[in-house]
Amino acid sequence: MTGVAIIGVGMTKVTQHFESGLRDLFADAALAAIRDAQNPKIDAIYVGNMLAGEIDGQANLGTYLADYLGLKVPAFRIENACSSGGAAFFNAVLAVKSGLFKTVLVGGVEKLTEYPTADTTAYLAEAADQEYEVFFGATFTSLNAMLMRYYMHKFNVPRELFGYWPVMMHKNATNNPYAQLPVPTTLERVLASPIVADPIRLFDCSPTGDGAAAVVITTIEEAKKMTDNYVTVAGIGMGVDSISIAMRDDLLTLKATKRAAEQAYKMANVTPKDIDVAEIHDAFSIMAVLSIEDLGFAEKGEAAFAIKEGIFENGETVYLNPSGGLKARGHPVGATGVYQIAEVTNQLRGTAGKMQLNDVKTGLAQNIGGSGSSVTVAILKKE
Amino acid sequence: MTGVAIIGVGMTKVTQHFESGLRDLFADAALAAIRDAQNPKIDAIYVGNMLAGEIDGQANLGTYLADYLGLKVPAFRIENACSSGGAAFFNAVLAVKSGLFKTVLVGGVEKLTEYPTADTTAYLAEAADQEYEVFFGATFTSLNAMLMRYYMHKFNVPRELFGYWPVMMHKNATNNPYAQLPVPTTLERVLASPIVADPIRLFDCSPTGDGAAAVVITTIEEAKKMTDNYVTVAGIGMGVDSISIAMRDDLLTLKATKRAAEQAYKMANVTPKDIDVAEIHDAFSIMAVLSIEDLGFAEKGEAAFAIKEGIFENGETVYLNPSGGLKARGHPVGATGVYQIAEVTNQLRGTAGKMQLNDVKTGLAQNIGGSGSSVTVAILKKE
Repeated sequence: MTGVAIIGVGMTKVTQHFESGLRDLFADAALAAIRDAQNPKIDAIYVGNMLAGEIDGQANLGTYLADYLGLKVPAFRIENACSSGGAAFFNAVLAVKSGLFKTVLVGGVEKLTEYPTADTTAYLAEAADQEYEVFFGATFTSLNAMLMRYYMHKFNVPRELFGYWPVMMHKNATNNPYAQLPVPTTLERVLASPIVADPIRLFDCSPTGDGAAAVVITTIEEAKKMTDNYVTVAGIGMGVDSISIAMRDDLLTLKATKRAAEQAYKMANVTPKDIDVAEIHDAFSIMAVLSIEDLGFAEKGEAAFAIKEGIFENGETVYLNPSGGLKARGHPVGATGVYQIAEVTNQLRGTAGKMQLNDVKTGLAQNIGGSGSSVTVAILKKE
Repeated sequence: MTGVAIIGVGMTKVTQHFESGLRDLFADAALAAIRDAQNPKIDAIYVGNMLAGEIDGQANLGTYLADYLGLKVPAFRIENACSSGGAAFFNAVLAVKSGLFKTVLVGGVEKLTEYPTADTTAYLAEAADQEYEVFFGATFTSLNAMLMRYYMHKFNVPRELFGYWPVMMHKNATNNPYAQLPVPTTLERVLASPIVADPIRLFDCSPTGDGAAAVVITTIEEAKKMTDNYVTVAGIGMGVDSISIAMRDDLLTLKATKRAAEQAYKMANVTPKDIDVAEIHDAFSIMAVLSIEDLGFAEKGEAAFAIKEGIFENGETVYLNPSGGLKARGHPVGATGVYQIAEVTNQLRGTAGKMQLNDVKTGLAQNIGGSGSSVTVAILKKE
């Protein structure tokens, strides 16, 4: 199969972009990525987005955004709930591997803040099972709260331990110019924050924001002609599990993450120990904990303890979410997966600014849709 | 590039499926296609759908439908407005060509009839430009009405001539067990039907319906092992144009169709003259006329005259829409593109039942999103 490389990245700050529509936001990120890639000819566009129809009344988003960029090239919107960005990247990589397109722009965009929070909560719940979960009153936060409560019970983990993740994320985000919450916090503040759905408190939740991110990918052959600072896509994987959590064999294992990671590790011929830096999908503290375990960075039941020990920020194992993650960089849902790819790319090629880590050669991005029902994993390498 | 073949098709009747949810409908078509393909192992699922979020409150549709089928394999939803089905097929073909997946299920599903018509009209208008067109009161019918009026003026075509297309489609649909309107009609009835948006009358419009269609594709190598009655995907193309019709150089040429067709003809190494049968996107009579011209089956300004002459049903040039097309088979938007692929496949492999034509070896399917802003074209061959 044709090898694929990332040659450009672009992001907007995650915040309340009242001044920008979907296309303005997308264009900001896309043009930054195209400039960063030194203005190659773009052959196709893949867009990750979850809620443009519901929130902005706009479908046909691939064409809508291609048109605004002045690029009349094949364009597609991929919707896989909160993993739409990761799924768009996955399909763009396949499109380059197929040989039909050489250079592809992959972007994600979402505007969540122009509408009342109640609507956003209802819209995001569309990623769950509308007939078997949402109809009975479930929201994303309440589904995650059940998982967290059960995890605390099964592995005898005190509530406080989950507080270290948000603290670490807020600290990391202070170095990220694109972060929605670039402000430090403390364990005391996290644990005193309002309860949203017991045991989940406000500071366990990723914030609602608007944002767009984009990357330009091409064949490795083409990348070599254009730059000496490209990153290769060593592995990709996509995993699916029961959309309704009630139907799962094991509530505390995200099988979709395991399936996606297994494919990606195999294709890249690496193990979790080889990963130097990862951006993982911490929509809630419990999702960070489950993801760390299911990606193979900690044993089941041990991630919360490992986070407290600081091993995911001191270089002892893998650096996790130097961007601040969904928790503090922000989570503009359909764009999140592309932010992760952009951030890992920056780390590997040494363009991560104040966030830059040392000696990171292999990176991973994990993007979750639903309560762990749709997951993409990508493994990137700097050779 | 790896060659791709179609080894199974499945469809549901297009109608008001009050008894079935999205997943029931999809499963009916998908299981029929999988059975028709003799139960191969499915490696991935691509779903075309436009409005599940808006109408059914359900996102994450790839996973949702994979889960219901009991197939925990990578799954994606593609949304390109009314060309979502064609776009899902396009990306599934690329996925097989990439070498990552061998056998892929491509389906399209849409439920349009459970909600008041006014809502459906508003939802479908999301395929146009929400800020520059819809905000000012445009609907799909009114945008098409402007194109039709201008066409009549520019090419001096009387209103009556547009009436022959619906008559032909209703006649063809009488042979289609999956058609929503399998009833003949007359020119007099078409021309006396109520005006929807002058000069478009009710019988110029495709009906609103629910439906699902699916096909199974695999490598040609694999297809040869499984059946001697497969159809090959000789060419695919996708074209984009300004989403807003006001921004186009020429209102009466669908450049997106021309771009998609050019790619597909080139890849398949054929010309319009080589096409024996085609399913074209006749959402309105004017769209049939423009599509016939832009696909190369008639000169610009002459399609309406050619339809009246009967050359698209007597075997003189190309057989058009033996299924009855969007007009009479029905137009469950995100599923339409997959219906077209399924129908052309049936024609080429001789399994089209009462619709079966003689001596058809090369077929084409054209699927439009928006007012001609997103178009896919696929060329299929029986070798």
